[in-house]
Amino acid sequence: MKTLPLPKGFSAAGIAAGIKKKKSKDMALIVSDVPAVSAAVFTTNQIKAAPVNWGIQVVEHVGARAIVLNSGNANACTGPQGMIDTEATAQLAAKHLCVEPKNVFVCSTGTIGKPLPMDKVTAGVETLFENLSPGNGMDAAEAMMTTDLVSKSLTVEIEIGGKPVRITGLAKGSGMIEPNMATMLGFILTDAAVEKHALQCALRFATDTSFNRISVDGDQSTNDTVIALANGSAGNEILTQDSEDWHLFFLTLEKMLFELAMMIVKDGEGATKVVTVRVIGAASNGEADEAARAVANSMLNKTAWAGTRPNWGRVMDAIGYSHAQVQEDRVDIAYDAVPLVRDGQACAEASETDAIAVVSQEAFTIHINLNLGDGEAVVYTCNCTEKYVQINVE
Amino acid sequence: MKTLPLPKGFSAAGIAAGIKKKKSKDMALIVSDVPAVSAAVFTTNQIKAAPVNWGIQVVEHVGARAIVLNSGNANACTGPQGMIDTEATAQLAAKHLCVEPKNVFVCSTGTIGKPLPMDKVTAGVETLFENLSPGNGMDAAEAMMTTDLVSKSLTVEIEIGGKPVRITGLAKGSGMIEPNMATMLGFILTDAAVEKHALQCALRFATDTSFNRISVDGDQSTNDTVIALANGSAGNEILTQDSEDWHLFFLTLEKMLFELAMMIVKDGEGATKVVTVRVIGAASNGEADEAARAVANSMLNKTAWAGTRPNWGRVMDAIGYSHAQVQEDRVDIAYDAVPLVRDGQACAEASETDAIAVVSQEAFTIHINLNLGDGEAVVYTCNCTEKYVQINVE
Repeated sequence: MKTLPLPKGFSAAGIAAGIKKKKSKDMALIVSDVPAVSAAVFTTNQIKAAPVNWGIQVVEHVGARAIVLNSGNANACTGPQGMIDTEATAQLAAKHLCVEPKNVFVCSTGTIGKPLPMDKVTAGVETLFENLSPGNGMDAAEAMMTTDLVSKSLTVEIEIGGKPVRITGLAKGSGMIEPNMATMLGFILTDAAVEKHALQCALRFATDTSFNRISVDGDQSTNDTVIALANGSAGNEILTQDSEDWHLFFLTLEKMLFELAMMIVKDGEGATKVVTVRVIGAASNGEADEAARAVANSMLNKTAWAGTRPNWGRVMDAIGYSHAQVQEDRVDIAYDAVPLVRDGQACAEASETDAIAVVSQEAFTIHINLNLGDGEAVVYTCNCTEKYVQINVE
Repeated sequence: MKTLPLPKGFSAAGIAAGIKKKKSKDMALIVSDVPAVSAAVFTTNQIKAAPVNWGIQVVEHVGARAIVLNSGNANACTGPQGMIDTEATAQLAAKHLCVEPKNVFVCSTGTIGKPLPMDKVTAGVETLFENLSPGNGMDAAEAMMTTDLVSKSLTVEIEIGGKPVRITGLAKGSGMIEPNMATMLGFILTDAAVEKHALQCALRFATDTSFNRISVDGDQSTNDTVIALANGSAGNEILTQDSEDWHLFFLTLEKMLFELAMMIVKDGEGATKVVTVRVIGAASNGEADEAARAVANSMLNKTAWAGTRPNWGRVMDAIGYSHAQVQEDRVDIAYDAVPLVRDGQACAEASETDAIAVVSQEAFTIHINLNLGDGEAVVYTCNCTEKYVQINVE
C-alpha cells in the first residue's frame, strides 16, 4: 500500500464521516505539533464559501496548528449559518489542541448550497483525532477526493542550511477547474522554518505558474484554496528570500505545485490526454495568455482532441475570437514538431498522418506563434470525452 | 413535403455538388430577378473566411442579385487562394446573370483550412442555375445544413403601404455558436422596397436581439454572416425609418430573426432543452449580460440541466466568477415560478420536487436578480448531452 511520509512534526488522519452518500473517506485532519508559519491563496470568485472567508482570517493569525477538511459538501451559499458551522468546526479541533479556533484552517469541497451536517462533522472531528498519526498522510489525501479518480500527493526531501527538510503536497481537483486563480484545494506541509512573508510570496508565485496555468472546464470554484504550513521542526535557520538556500527551497516548492497541477489535469473529469498550449509572438504576455486560454477552453478543440483529430482550423478559430490581437497571415502552428500552419494557411509539407500521430499521444503540445511581438504564455489542459458529460450529468 | 414560399422576384436552388463526403445537398443559390438593396452583419472573429471578406465588399456595392452558398468547406484560413476561389464563384454566377461579380454574395460553411474543391463548385454553380425556381426554397435551406438536424426557414406575409409583402428567413447553425456577434448563416429575403440604411439598421438591431442572444458552445465561427435582400418587387413605396409601416416591418423582421435563432438553439448539437437565462438587478446592462453569459456558457450548468438537476449552486458559482459585480447575500434565483435562492441562500420554502419538475421541461427560464441596480439581459442557451461530445469527436 502507498504511504505518504510527512515532514517532521506533522500528523494526519482521513476517515469516512458519512457526509458523502457513498461511504468513502470524507473528512481529513492535518496537525502540526508546534505552531506553524502559514501562507494561503484563495479563490477570486466573488461568491466565496464560508471556510474560504474563515481561512482569510486564519492566515493573518499567528501560529497555525491544523487544517480540518470535509468533502461532499462545499458549505458555500449557506449564509451566516455557514460561517457559524465553519467556526464551530475550527473550535472543535482547537479544543483538542488547546489553541484558539483562529489557529485552525477549515476547508470544504463538494455540493454548493446545502447546510453542513454538523452532527456528522462533530463526530467526525472526534474520530479524526483518534486516528491522528504521522503515518496516515495517504488517508488525508484520499479524504480530499470528490470526483477525483486518484488521490494526489507527493513528498520530496532536500537539504536546507545543512538540515534535511521534507516538503509534502496534497491536492484535490478534477472538475470546476479554471485557470487564472487559486484553483482547487492544495496543502503544502514542510518542516522547514520559513519566514512568513517569504512563504506567502513563494506560494503565490508558485501557484501562478502551476495551478493557475491549468484548465479542465473553465469553471472556477467558490472553495479554491491552497495552504502552506511551515513548522520549523527541521531545525534549520529561518529561511528568508535572502537565504543562501532560498532558491533551492522555492524551486522545490514550485516544482511540487507544478507536479500536483499536472496530476489534476491528468485526472480532469473523463480526460485521457494532457494538452499543452504554448503561445509565443503575441503583442504582450497578457494577450498570449488570452489566446492560449481561448484554445484550451474551446469545447470544439477539447472534443477534437478526444477524437484524435488535429483540426487546426478550430485552433485558428479560437485565437481569432480571443481578446488577443491576431493577424491571420502571420500565424504559425505546429503540433509537437509537426508544422501544420504557416502564415495562416496549411503548410505545403503538413502531413495529416504525422499530425494524427501527435494527437493520438497521451500528451502533446500545440505551439502557436502569432509573430506580432514577444508575448508568451502556456496553459495546460485536457481533452473532453463523453465521460465528462456523464460525470456531470449524474 | 414542406415547401417554402419565397417573396416575389426570388428563386432558389439547392443541390448535392459532392463537396460533403456524404452525398447530401451542399450548394445553394438564391437569385433576385431585379437588383436588390442589401444589408449584412458579419462575424467579429479576427480570422475571417474569404467569403466574409468578399461579402464585406459586396454589401457596399449597389444592386445585389444573388447569394451562392456551399456547405462542407468553410474556405477559411485558405490564404490568397481562398479569395481567388470566392471571387471565381461569384464570377460564375455573375456571368449567368449578366452582372458584375460584386453583385453576388458568396457564403461558405464547414471545415476550416481546406482549399475549396473548385471543380465541384464550378459544376455545382451550373447545376444550381439549371434548378433555379421560385418553388425550390426548401432545397436551398437544406443545402445550408452542416451538423444541423433540421433545416430552418419560415415565410411570413404582412401588408406594407397597402401592398402584400413577404419576408422569408433561412438559417443554419448548430455548433460553434456563441453570442455577441453575427452568429451562423442567415438569409432574409423580402419583396418589400426598403431604403438601404434603414435595412442595415434593422438587420443589425434584430441580430443583436436574436442571433446575438443565443449560445450553444461559446465558440464563434470564422464564417458567421447574416444577409438581407430587399428587391422591391412588392411594389410598395420605399420603406424608410420614417415610413408609417416601418414599425410593422421592423417588428416582423425582428420576430423572424428571433424565431430562427430559437430554431438554432433547439437544434444545438445534441441539445434536448432550451434554457432562458434572464438576469435583472445588475449594476448595468453590460454586467447583466456578463452574468447571463457566464451561466449560459458554463459546462457544469449545461450538463446539470441535461441531468435534470436544478443545482442552483452552479448558477451561483458562475455569476460569482463572471465579470459582473455580485454581492452574495443579495442574489435571488428562481427557476420559472419556483423560488430557490433568496439573499444568496436556499429559500426556506424551496421545493426540490418543484425545481426538478421545472428542469425536466423542454424549455424553462432561470431568473436571476442581483438586486444591485437596473441592469438587465437575457441569453438563450441549451443543455449539453453526451451527444454534443459524440458529434464533435466524430
